[in-house]
Formats: sequence, C-alpha cells, structure tokens
Amino acid sequence: MERHFDEDLKKLNSELLKMATLTEESILKSTEALKNKDVKLAQNVIEKDKEIDRKEIEIEESAIELLALHQPVAGDLRFITTGMKINAELERIADLAVNVSQRVIEMGDQPHLKPLIDIPKLSDLARKMVKEAIDAFVNHDEERAKKVVLSDSEADKLRNVIHKELINDYMVKDGSTAPRVVPLLLISRHLERICDHATYIAEDVIYMVQAKVIRHQRETLKEK
Amino acid sequence: MERHFDEDLKKLNSELLKMATLTEESILKSTEALKNKDVKLAQNVIEKDKEIDRKEIEIEESAIELLALHQPVAGDLRFITTGMKINAELERIADLAVNVSQRVIEMGDQPHLKPLIDIPKLSDLARKMVKEAIDAFVNHDEERAKKVVLSDSEADKLRNVIHKELINDYMVKDGSTAPRVVPLLLISRHLERICDHATYIAEDVIYMVQAKVIRHQRETLKEK
Repeated sequence: MERHFDEDLKKLNSELLKMATLTEESILKSTEALKNKDVKLAQNVIEKDKEIDRKEIEIEESAIELLALHQPVAGDLRFITTGMKINAELERIADLAVNVSQRVIEMGDQPHLKPLIDIPKLSDLARKMVKEAIDAFVNHDEERAKKVVLSDSEADKLRNVIHKELINDYMVKDGSTAPRVVPLLLISRHLERICDHATYIAEDVIYMVQAKVIRHQRETLKEK
Repeated sequence: MERHFDEDLKKLNSELLKMATLTEESILKSTEALKNKDVKLAQNVIEKDKEIDRKEIEIEESAIELLALHQPVAGDLRFITTGMKINAELERIADLAVNVSQRVIEMGDQPHLKPLIDIPKLSDLARKMVKEAIDAFVNHDEERAKKVVLSDSEADKLRNVIHKELINDYMVKDGSTAPRVVPLLLISRHLERICDHATYIAEDVIYMVQAKVIRHQRETLKEK
C-alpha cells in the first residue's frame, strides 16, 4: 500500500510537469503569434486550450482520488493540496495565453506600430517565472520559489514602461492609433497577470515548505 | 465523531460565506471609490485586503485540518476540495477589487470624462454573480450555478460596449484623453475578470453537484 501511494504521488508530480509544459508552450506560441501576426498560430493556442482544460480536470480527479484512497496526513496531504492549487493556477495561466491570442486575432493583419521589444521580453519573463515556480514545487525548493516572488516587481515595472510608452508616445500624439494600441495594452496586462499567477504558485511552494519546517520543529521539540 | 465533523463542515461553510461577504464589499467599495473619486475609500479597500488574505489562509488551514482529522470520502471530500477552490477564487476576486482601487488612486482627482454608467452596471453584475455563485455552492443548487455561467456572456458584451465607446468616442477623437481613459479600460477588464471568477466558482459547483449525482446513480445501480 505504501509503495502504491508513492507511485501515485510521483504520477501526480509528472502530470503536473506535463501540464506546466503545455502551459509554457501556450505562452510561447501566443507571443510568437503576436510578433509574427500569425492568426493561425493564435487559433492553435485557443484550440489547444481544450486539452489543457481536460488535463486540469484529470489532475484534480486523481488528486481527489489520492486523498480518498490513501487519506494522507501532514506533509503528503499538504503536497497534494498545494498540487491542486498549482494545477488550477496553470489552467488560469493557459487561459491568459488564450486571452493574448484572442487579442492577436482581433488585431488581424494590421501592421505593428513599431517592432515589439518589451512585450516579448515580458512574455519571456512570464514563461521563466512559471518554469521556475514549478521546478521549485517539484524540488521543494524554497530559495528558488523566493526568487520567483522577487521577479514579480520586475514584471510590474516592465508592464508600466510598456503602458507609459503606448499611452504617451502613441495614443496621446495620435488618437487614431488607439484601436491598434489598446490590444497591446491588454496583452501586456495579460502577461503581467501570468507573472502574478507564477508568483502565487511560488508563494504556495514557500508556504508548503515552511509548514513542513514548522512541523519538523514541532516534532523535534516533542522528541526532547 | 460524526457530529463533530458535521459541525466542522458547517463552520467551513459559514467562514466561506463571511469571506464572500468581505469580497462583495470590496467590489462595492472600489466602484463607489471610482464613482465619487474617493481616494480614501480606495485606500481602505487595499488596506482591508490584508484581512481577506489572512482569512483565505485560515479557511485553507481549517479545510486541510478537516481532511487530516476526518479523512472524508465521496461527497464530503468533494465539498471540501470545492470549498478550497472557491476560497482561492474569492481571494483573487478581492485582489481584482484592489486593482480597481489602484487605478482609482492613479487617476487621482482628475474629473471623469463623462458620468459613468456602464462601468457601475458591470460592477453590479459582477457582485451579483459572486453572490449567486456562493449561494449556489452553499445550497448545492445546480440551477442557480447554471444561471451564473449564462450571465458571463452578458459581462463580456458589457465590457465590449465599454471598450468600444472609450476607444472610438474618446481616444480616437482626442488622443490627449488617453491617460484618463486607459485606467477606465483596465477597470472594465478587472470587473469582467471578477465575472470570470464567479463563473469558475459556478462551474465548480455544477461539477460538484453532478459528481454527487453520478455517484448516487452508481450507488442506485449497485443496489439493484
């Protein structure tokens, strides 16, 4: 029975990693679609999201099954409930990549006002934060999770720079650019939200690891 | 033991209701702050959010404790895991009310371009959807949850109307309005996201109720 539980836990871990990979791909593809005005690729992100939604439900079901079958306590219980939260975060992140893709489709083949630099940079940061947060979870790595939390202010700053430029250098100077600028404003907001969700994941990991530490301290105290 | 578990479940229920009330208040106050350019009220929403964050952690802790102590299965287990998801949604909704308040503070005491009508309407819809979704959860009411899911397209439409008006009637005609219009664009997006989260809650409720129905059907089949 014990070994079976470990196997189920490992499976939950690897399923979450797969879910994370699909999500990172959605972020990457939605930004590629934006850069290259590739409406087909944007549609592909939206199509692929159904698979991610199904995977979320599958993972949640297996986590609930794990709880029902093995009735874990302490660290294992907390690992599973944290996994469930992270699973939901990943699905939300994939939804935000869908939002980016929807904006790309709305924009159609209108040329970009200027080459995009900061938005792809924000997208790269978002993807990196998601990856690092998931690695921190899998490895119970508090330090790595803390770095993700610190990166969030970088994302906020980058989003502010993007917003200021789009407002002051484009819309204020020439109001007719607004219909082309607003989707970019929204996209930068979607990407910043992805960074927020990666931060939530990292905070959950820190909380999970620290609860374990506190529990260990309590157990050590009891032993004395 | 059985009775104790029921009491703990009831407590979880009432704590979630309190959390929902705090969240609805944040939505209401952030929109009042917007309407009346009341920066102090906006700051109050941000301040109050710390309490909501603490409450989220408390509820999650008691849910995990419930799982560890009583090791529930089937419907009870699913009710608790759904409660945990809803708890996280409510915290996110409160964060979005904070986002609205942050935009209000950024706008300072600049006069509104015109009396706000559709944004308060979207805010009322958001608050109603949250309230109905929580009521659906507490009462295991699938029909009520389905109505919330249907309302989401209304929110999307309203957001579109707001965006089109702000872009075409203000920014395109006079680019210098952009710094005052963009916060309103973002606020309407925040409010639409609140409606999305209310929809997620309603979907979770439907899923929870249907899983129970499926389980009941299985049990009835077994009895035959």
